Amino acid sequence: MEKAVVVKIGGNVIDDETKLSLFLKGFAAIEGFKILVHGGGKAATRLGEQLGIPQQMIEGRRITNAETLKIVTMVYAGYINKNMVAQLQAHKCNAIGLCGADANVIQARKRVHATIDYGYAGDVTTVNTTFIQALLNQQLTPVLSPITHNREGGLLNTNADTIAQEIAKALSSLYSVYLVYCFEKKGVLSDVTDNDSVIKIINPDSYKKLKKSGTIFEGMIPKLDNAFEALQRGVAKVMIGQADNIQQLVTSNSGTTITNE
Amino acid sequence: MEKAVVVKIGGNVIDDETKLSLFLKGFAAIEGFKILVHGGGKAATRLGEQLGIPQQMIEGRRITNAETLKIVTMVYAGYINKNMVAQLQAHKCNAIGLCGADANVIQARKRVHATIDYGYAGDVTTVNTTFIQALLNQQLTPVLSPITHNREGGLLNTNADTIAQEIAKALSSLYSVYLVYCFEKKGVLSDVTDNDSVIKIINPDSYKKLKKSGTIFEGMIPKLDNAFEALQRGVAKVMIGQADNIQQLVTSNSGTTITNE
Repeated sequence: MEKAVVVKIGGNVIDDETKLSLFLKGFAAIEGFKILVHGGGKAATRLGEQLGIPQQMIEGRRITNAETLKIVTMVYAGYINKNMVAQLQAHKCNAIGLCGADANVIQARKRVHATIDYGYAGDVTTVNTTFIQALLNQQLTPVLSPITHNREGGLLNTNADTIAQEIAKALSSLYSVYLVYCFEKKGVLSDVTDNDSVIKIINPDSYKKLKKSGTIFEGMIPKLDNAFEALQRGVAKVMIGQADNIQQLVTSNSGTTITNE
Repeated sequence: MEKAVVVKIGGNVIDDETKLSLFLKGFAAIEGFKILVHGGGKAATRLGEQLGIPQQMIEGRRITNAETLKIVTMVYAGYINKNMVAQLQAHKCNAIGLCGADANVIQARKRVHATIDYGYAGDVTTVNTTFIQALLNQQLTPVLSPITHNREGGLLNTNADTIAQEIAKALSSLYSVYLVYCFEKKGVLSDVTDNDSVIKIINPDSYKKLKKSGTIFEGMIPKLDNAFEALQRGVAKVMIGQADNIQQLVTSNSGTTITNE
């Protein structure tokens, strides 16, 4: 199967114009099929403050009332997405910016939770792989903002990590998919105080040991659980590392590679 | 040649939720190839005011400084575009929202004017007809926001009427194109005080007479001049009329049809 790279770029890089620009240059240079999924960063929170609409977060998830949905739609699907696409175009990467409603590429349903009302938050139900494949075959690079829809006319705010993962899993029947998470650190660290202590490879065996010894803990555990779940669902490799090394990251020459082998 | 309908929907309809919803339902039901181009309406001006960034207009054109470019990108390419797409999806119209940077669909250059600095305002240079045709062949309906790019990483604010016209002209080599302008009146009126005095057909001969007699004047003249220019550049028909009659308008059963015959 041909390779396809799904890259998730997070808020920390998006908030920093210079870092973002460097990342996009590197991303544009990745050869072959590629897809970019971006988060939101602080711009939505900032705009909310300016408009007097305070943003409420519960366990890292934004509570999305009608006014906040409007804000994230403007910031994520508008400002951030279109500026990224324009920059990629300048680097001769034929990018196309999409939210989930566009060509029904990612459908979701409103999250139902026993105790917390997340508002207009969406959980992914279907990924339109036929359409993504058609874009890739036209040498286009999809750039996805974390806004989905319910196919009943409503938009939904959706976690970008989840979107990247769902796309990676869905495309696994068609491609050998590399799922790449860019974050602020060089990779999964064996010593959190030392950014150079990157663990190069994690497989199910070593993961068990790393958890048992307490080397991997807290916030990293759900990330890695998700990574192994993606591998079980057919994703070939999951990589975690720094955005400014995107090309080395994709080739496993930097960062942490998570594998089933 | 197969028929393709290019519909421009303006600010007055976009500002009215009920009217917009009705229009989108009608648009979704148009059979065959279709493209929607939308303007901005008052939402950008309103957001500018809320953020303390007053919007300056000269001869109906928005002066687009960096802050205003950010606002129109958020409002036009984000909020308005994605909500329209989501609504069309609910009506089983497989819409895909785009700005000019997406797949390099509409390239522009920064406007240069002898006396007025329009800021980040763009004049269309190229339309990517190959990509639009590919979308139409996939039964997709492009929905274009009036934001373009210069292919050097910069977005540009561009007049939606112009975008509709440039797309219509560019597609004329591939399709028999009907260019439809929806506005607040039922069509071109012989008596501006009577909304039922619609002139059904205008051709070059009758246009001369209508101008000479003063029946058509002021703001309508540039609109009609543009319509005739589009016809000269290969567009099959230009229709002008009300948004809530979109289906009758497209079939020349309401509104004004402008033709070379």
